[in-house]
Amino acid sequence: MYSFMNDYSEGAHPRVLELLMKANLEQNTGYGEDTHTAKAKEYIKKWMNKEDVDIHFIPGGTQTNLLVISSFLKSYQCVIAADTGHINVHETGAIEATGHKVVAMPCMDGKLTPAIIQAALDHHTDEHMVQPKMVYISNSTELGTIYTKAELAAIHHICKANGLLLFMDGARMGSALTCKANDLELSDIAELVDVFYIGGTKNGALLGEALIICKEELKADFRYSIKQRGALMAKGFVVGIQFEALFQDNLFFELGAHANEMAQEIASILSKNGYSFYAEPITNQLFPILPNALLAKLEKEFLFSVQKKIDDDNSAIRFVTSWATTAKSVEALHEFFNNYIK
Amino acid sequence: MYSFMNDYSEGAHPRVLELLMKANLEQNTGYGEDTHTAKAKEYIKKWMNKEDVDIHFIPGGTQTNLLVISSFLKSYQCVIAADTGHINVHETGAIEATGHKVVAMPCMDGKLTPAIIQAALDHHTDEHMVQPKMVYISNSTELGTIYTKAELAAIHHICKANGLLLFMDGARMGSALTCKANDLELSDIAELVDVFYIGGTKNGALLGEALIICKEELKADFRYSIKQRGALMAKGFVVGIQFEALFQDNLFFELGAHANEMAQEIASILSKNGYSFYAEPITNQLFPILPNALLAKLEKEFLFSVQKKIDDDNSAIRFVTSWATTAKSVEALHEFFNNYIK
Amino acid sequence: MYSFMNDYSEGAHPRVLELLMKANLEQNTGYGEDTHTAKAKEYIKKWMNKEDVDIHFIPGGTQTNLLVISSFLKSYQCVIAADTGHINVHETGAIEATGHKVVAMPCMDGKLTPAIIQAALDHHTDEHMVQPKMVYISNSTELGTIYTKAELAAIHHICKANGLLLFMDGARMGSALTCKANDLELSDIAELVDVFYIGGTKNGALLGEALIICKEELKADFRYSIKQRGALMAKGFVVGIQFEALFQDNLFFELGAHANEMAQEIASILSKNGYSFYAEPITNQLFPILPNALLAKLEKEFLFSVQKKIDDDNSAIRFVTSWATTAKSVEALHEFFNNYIK
Amino acid sequence: MYSFMNDYSEGAHPRVLELLMKANLEQNTGYGEDTHTAKAKEYIKKWMNKEDVDIHFIPGGTQTNLLVISSFLKSYQCVIAADTGHINVHETGAIEATGHKVVAMPCMDGKLTPAIIQAALDHHTDEHMVQPKMVYISNSTELGTIYTKAELAAIHHICKANGLLLFMDGARMGSALTCKANDLELSDIAELVDVFYIGGTKNGALLGEALIICKEELKADFRYSIKQRGALMAKGFVVGIQFEALFQDNLFFELGAHANEMAQEIASILSKNGYSFYAEPITNQLFPILPNALLAKLEKEFLFSVQKKIDDDNSAIRFVTSWATTAKSVEALHEFFNNYIK
Repeated sequence: MYSFMNDYSEGAHPRVLELLMKANLEQNTGYGEDTHTAKAKEYIKKWMNKEDVDIHFIPGGTQTNLLVISSFLKSYQCVIAADTGHINVHETGAIEATGHKVVAMPCMDGKLTPAIIQAALDHHTDEHMVQPKMVYISNSTELGTIYTKAELAAIHHICKANGLLLFMDGARMGSALTCKANDLELSDIAELVDVFYIGGTKNGALLGEALIICKEELKADFRYSIKQRGALMAKGFVVGIQFEALFQDNLFFELGAHANEMAQEIASILSKNGYSFYAEPITNQLFPILPNALLAKLEKEFLFSVQKKIDDDNSAIRFVTSWATTAKSVEALHEFFNNYIK
Repeated sequence: MYSFMNDYSEGAHPRVLELLMKANLEQNTGYGEDTHTAKAKEYIKKWMNKEDVDIHFIPGGTQTNLLVISSFLKSYQCVIAADTGHINVHETGAIEATGHKVVAMPCMDGKLTPAIIQAALDHHTDEHMVQPKMVYISNSTELGTIYTKAELAAIHHICKANGLLLFMDGARMGSALTCKANDLELSDIAELVDVFYIGGTKNGALLGEALIICKEELKADFRYSIKQRGALMAKGFVVGIQFEALFQDNLFFELGAHANEMAQEIASILSKNGYSFYAEPITNQLFPILPNALLAKLEKEFLFSVQKKIDDDNSAIRFVTSWATTAKSVEALHEFFNNYIK
Repeated sequence: MYSFMNDYSEGAHPRVLELLMKANLEQNTGYGEDTHTAKAKEYIKKWMNKEDVDIHFIPGGTQTNLLVISSFLKSYQCVIAADTGHINVHETGAIEATGHKVVAMPCMDGKLTPAIIQAALDHHTDEHMVQPKMVYISNSTELGTIYTKAELAAIHHICKANGLLLFMDGARMGSALTCKANDLELSDIAELVDVFYIGGTKNGALLGEALIICKEELKADFRYSIKQRGALMAKGFVVGIQFEALFQDNLFFELGAHANEMAQEIASILSKNGYSFYAEPITNQLFPILPNALLAKLEKEFLFSVQKKIDDDNSAIRFVTSWATTAKSVEALHEFFNNYIK
Repeated sequence: MYSFMNDYSEGAHPRVLELLMKANLEQNTGYGEDTHTAKAKEYIKKWMNKEDVDIHFIPGGTQTNLLVISSFLKSYQCVIAADTGHINVHETGAIEATGHKVVAMPCMDGKLTPAIIQAALDHHTDEHMVQPKMVYISNSTELGTIYTKAELAAIHHICKANGLLLFMDGARMGSALTCKANDLELSDIAELVDVFYIGGTKNGALLGEALIICKEELKADFRYSIKQRGALMAKGFVVGIQFEALFQDNLFFELGAHANEMAQEIASILSKNGYSFYAEPITNQLFPILPNALLAKLEKEFLFSVQKKIDDDNSAIRFVTSWATTAKSVEALHEFFNNYIK
């Protein structure tokens, strides 16, 4: 049985594992102050073409989100997010557990816009309400869509105009940056947002996210926050080495591109069979709308998740590809649809 | 230069890495619901000779401490710890950040006793003060000492008598359980404490701690807490596989025994040279008291940390060994002392 | 200029002040352990016809809300509220600041229903999401509407069936219980909810809310929470005496009835003049929809707040009456409308 | 039976109550934006001879402490306090509940010194530990002692030199500023600390503390914090009016002076009878060391609290006087000692 359940079913890309094994018996300094971590940071900075950022490697995504939001907001400040945003729905109230309200706004395609952000601002007028101070966006979003450079610039501008910090969750940045519809580079993102992260867990690493703090005022003492939230790994080099492997050459981008390529093949199969999509199928998450009768058969051969009931007969499901998705598994899907008689 | 700085300088034991590589391209279920994690739990239960416990794998120690304490205490309840306890000193207020006071009690050798716990209870009498509800102990302690079965039983009894939960931080359980002075087995601990963990990070794994919840009333919904605090790894199997490797045979105990053996050799060298210890040298952390003049030379060849100024001429330092400590490095230390002329 | 801005513009009802003055130089025990507070509790229990409840007097409403919710929920649990609920909009994230998500549901008339509660339950399915554990309702609601006995019983049943605690914010209970549409008595409420409070601040007292814990399991150690959140007044008797005055006879209910009577007169004036209401005008908060042209004149003679833009020409405003609203002020309003030529 | 149990047994001074009654039926703006509150602020500023401060009235002391500390510290920062400090012992972990560690230092006479503060700084060296950012002192202290101008200036200097905020808890400021040993004026305090408060609850008001923020950078948005922690009273004028009464003339200082005078008479009685004191008897809290045999008789006629066992035969107790302490009650104490035959 092939799984299209998610992009974290396998371990690490072999070239990542290789470097990890090579360094295994070295005596490295603890808590991310080792030379591998330093190199990984240099490589990432080169890819961003930007030196004046602070980079920290964090074990996981929810942890990164809660760290960023709780560190940069005062207790009475809130973060604005799409209602589909990961922090709003799928983190068990992790942000609220650090004391902050997530102001969730209804959105199309999982994306915030300046108009939606303005609406959130308009609703918060005095000290009887939380004070908006940060905007959280995901790229790619939880619906597999992405922000164009123009869209991100527009959000950047409304944030600047209103003193809002802009935070991009890049758990799936690898797929976002390498999909055909994309016109953003890491260097653009580093200019347009105040803080963001590049996901390793979903793009070739065993674990780890690279958090990049661009705004000078946010940099001081961040390691205190990391330690306090339990995110400062004794063996920080375990993540550092993996990012070294991903960014010393273009491995990170290769892996994202592979995931997208596999997704495009699947999208093409589905389109040819006449199925439509709940959200535009451009990155490694696809949300085809399929008949329930078909799903009953599909689930006997493939793992996937059901996203949403569309009507009595159809559901939007989620297929996810990754760096590890094999041509063979896509071919099996192809065959399934060829053989499926409605 | 050899490092005796800590027990987390190297990666994972080769047999741990081997299993990780072997499983690398399997498609495993996310969030720790995979078969490797299930096996690891079964192995640990067998070693404990106890089935009715809940086991969760958590990425790191500070995270485990804050998870346990914040999940099991009500907001107005506190945890009693030795003043040297890791949660009191070296976790950047991680426990307080979840809302709980750590009542730190002055201790000898890093160990709590019933009398000390009673003193803490006696000081907290009404609703104007926090309510003691948990006792936190480390085994081995932050000073390398351990609890005997009799000592642990005595603490167990005062906890039971006063409705206190007993929590053992086992970040260095591997060394504690395999040192010569030890008379505790995992099965004893599982009977005597309410919750504890077995450290992987410092005993052969890349990362990970096995949290064991013994008390029935504490088990429900714990995964909600894990997720909320950012400790539910998407690739939970990465830690599960490592514990599978450590506990499918006696590897975990072998590694602890090796660290202790190396430490005993160093202790023996130091004793023969006439040096005393700040705390009893029985596990993989040694705290010899050495002349500052000697330290000035020692630090040119070895990495270690200074624990405490003893007087104007002498300091207690910390040597730490691990599963990865080589005979060669100990031999180098031996030579250093042979050659050192006071 | 007359103010219909709110129901907390004046001090305390003269009979409340009188008792306060009478007791002023007594030496009373601190922290609410005085005889006046004890009497106040007895009086309230008599009015509820129920002995087995715990009563605590808390200085203010936001404090009571955050105390109740943070004390009775575990860290990963959330509270379900109407989107208009005070805790969702007008408490500056007070609930989130204690670590809990408010799951806000779109509602008509400010009221939750079993169907809406069920919808919230249906959206929260596993440990990646917060766990619903409490339902928060206000009576009267933020839109001046009330729950009937049948409606409250229905909510009670869905809560019981799903292990949800039911919490009623009674900041405006005085007006709710004495309005014509009401069929609830304090004794009904005490049977149907797990915890609720009776507002003094908005019904005759200088400050203070009477929190009533009905559910046995919630009673223990609540004073620890009160103290920890800064709500345990040194001079607790200051609030105790005021509730003694309000409940030793039927003063509390008289005051609510007066507020309602004044409101009904205003509603009648508005209806006669052909204006409609944004929400049913049954308690001491009225939300008439008035032409903006009229408002421009009205605001020169009266204080009120604007609730919501209805269309380009009309707005819903809020008139609030209280125990202190004078016939003279209502008469002035009457004259204004008589004289107003559209 | 006369009570010397505390300084919050009676209501408000008659002149305070009088103003409260006079304003009772006025329609005042809510949330402390009324004219009485404005006047009270002006009066206090005049007494401080300082215009550029922000003043907020808060219902109680614990609430003020937690508000100040949680608002001005980042999550990883701690506050240094004397081990006897109110925030360390008697607030049920209120500060920790907002996420911050209280670093409690052993002190003589309840007072911090530059040397003690330096010792706390020396123990906190890196991101594995909390970061000291605030010093909390009480004046008078929990042992009735006070800071001299020179002592406060010295603490001010070490704070400035180390980037520490200086916060003075003035719950008993009335007694501190009017005792004979005092050489501080409100204007000195306003220059030497960053934030402090003047206690009303223990010096003539029904409730309320005047919080004064001196440091410019701390002023912004403080009302958001007040609201979020449940400390923004709907009827803010209730506290505003009381401070208006206390500071429109020198009533506040008269009341403190009266409390001290009564205390001095008691101290004199005790000294004449040969008893010593656990801490210097200079303000309205006295800690005489008395034989247990005497206490057994004393407690039949007077209320007081036992502070500490001194030896098998003697205990330090606490006598507290206030603005409401009568000459008659002191006379009764005098007689008791005259009649007591050892």
